[in-house]
Amino acid sequence: MADLTTDNRDDDVGRQRLLAHLRDLLLRRQLEVREKWNRTVPFADYISDRWQKAQLLGFGEGASIYDSALVIGDVSVGAHSWIGPFTVLDGSGGLSIGDYCSVSAGVQIYTHDTVKWAISGGVAPPERAAVRVGHRCYIGPNVVITKGVEIGDGCVIGANSLVTRDIPSGMKAWGSPARVRGFV
Amino acid sequence: MADLTTDNRDDDVGRQRLLAHLRDLLLRRQLEVREKWNRTVPFADYISDRWQKAQLLGFGEGASIYDSALVIGDVSVGAHSWIGPFTVLDGSGGLSIGDYCSVSAGVQIYTHDTVKWAISGGVAPPERAAVRVGHRCYIGPNVVITKGVEIGDGCVIGANSLVTRDIPSGMKAWGSPARVRGFV
Amino acid sequence: MADLTTDNRDDDVGRQRLLAHLRDLLLRRQLEVREKWNRTVPFADYISDRWQKAQLLGFGEGASIYDSALVIGDVSVGAHSWIGPFTVLDGSGGLSIGDYCSVSAGVQIYTHDTVKWAISGGVAPPERAAVRVGHRCYIGPNVVITKGVEIGDGCVIGANSLVTRDIPSGMKAWGSPARVRGFV
Repeated sequence: MADLTTDNRDDDVGRQRLLAHLRDLLLRRQLEVREKWNRTVPFADYISDRWQKAQLLGFGEGASIYDSALVIGDVSVGAHSWIGPFTVLDGSGGLSIGDYCSVSAGVQIYTHDTVKWAISGGVAPPERAAVRVGHRCYIGPNVVITKGVEIGDGCVIGANSLVTRDIPSGMKAWGSPARVRGFV
Repeated sequence: MADLTTDNRDDDVGRQRLLAHLRDLLLRRQLEVREKWNRTVPFADYISDRWQKAQLLGFGEGASIYDSALVIGDVSVGAHSWIGPFTVLDGSGGLSIGDYCSVSAGVQIYTHDTVKWAISGGVAPPERAAVRVGHRCYIGPNVVITKGVEIGDGCVIGANSLVTRDIPSGMKAWGSPARVRGFV
Repeated sequence: MADLTTDNRDDDVGRQRLLAHLRDLLLRRQLEVREKWNRTVPFADYISDRWQKAQLLGFGEGASIYDSALVIGDVSVGAHSWIGPFTVLDGSGGLSIGDYCSVSAGVQIYTHDTVKWAISGGVAPPERAAVRVGHRCYIGPNVVITKGVEIGDGCVIGANSLVTRDIPSGMKAWGSPARVRGFV
């Protein structure tokens, strides 16, 4: 492998080399991880370690979180919880998630919103309220949870739901807005 | 820090070094940004600057757009608008978004679709029609807007909605398909 | 372009240089690709080639898949199919997708779920069942397909739908849960 850069070449050569090395790295990691784990992940997930990122964020033992997850403000996540890709955990108003939760890909949990900010043309500040998700909850793909919601322990929230009100422990709920549909 | 690569080592050593340096960079940026802004973002958002990307795209003053946003064709975005992560702004049929809009994470705005392309087995071309979103609109998380739709000024579109018809100024709308539910 | 790193400088200088080079590369690629294709893509899609990634995964001729797509387990995809960004193709229970399919941005197809895993506090294993999507299907943005579902040929699934039951060939379906609404 040649030097990534040298002082006596112009920028474009250096750029092409860096790009070539990144492509080579991606390809090799794809082959290695596919061989070992039979999965192919986004580029950045070959760089980031899901468990290390969770640890860095102070999450509980055995928790993991994909690189593409966006984490804002104060977010606490319990042990063994799984946070999927393309997620937003907004703790700007305070967010806590319990142990053994499955926070599926595409889930967005908000503790603020910019509705009034937008319609006022940037005058009104964002509004904030805390969210709490209990232990052993399954939050389905693409679920959106709005500010101020409390979800109990052992709840199941169906895919593509919009949760705007509290869900008591042990209940399953779905829809937009999500309504309780029965016991888990 | 050692050389990323040297001519007299084999490719694998160079690759491992590049990977190690990228991991080190990610970790350091995570620590720095968390310390300063109390947030943890996807790897590429430590490289890309949201305001610079918006400027490069010719968006208005103070607008910002996450790295993961995919921008296709001719897209104009006004001043101070916020474009979230995991979004698609498809301007292949012409797309304009006004000032002070909040385009939430996961929003996809289309000015083409490939429905006929797919069911014809690749024979029929994509269909296109322009979309216009006015000023001071809040487009909730995961909203999908289909080709040909016009959304007025000061509208609020609820999370997880599918917008297939025009929404007049000052209205709130939600659902799949989204219907007007009242004044903002 | 200077050396990315040198042995006689401390780590922080090397890191700043690597970051500067990545930023420079991103900016240059953004300018080049925008000039040539009038589109701006996430950072990793300047590194990954959509057609090469599809080829690596053994997909059919002319198929393509964005870098951010997460592919798990055994997934087969036919010729000329298009797999968008922010997608999950979970083949841990076996997944096949036919030719000329349009799998839109944000689509998540699952052949396992962790509902019982979560509510049992990590005791129950994930459940699995295969999914099959036929040829010439249009799967709209943010659609979630759950384990065990079979979708025939030439189907159209509306955006933001949750597909939990089989959809026969030639039908259009939408909603949460998705219901057949008529012939394509």
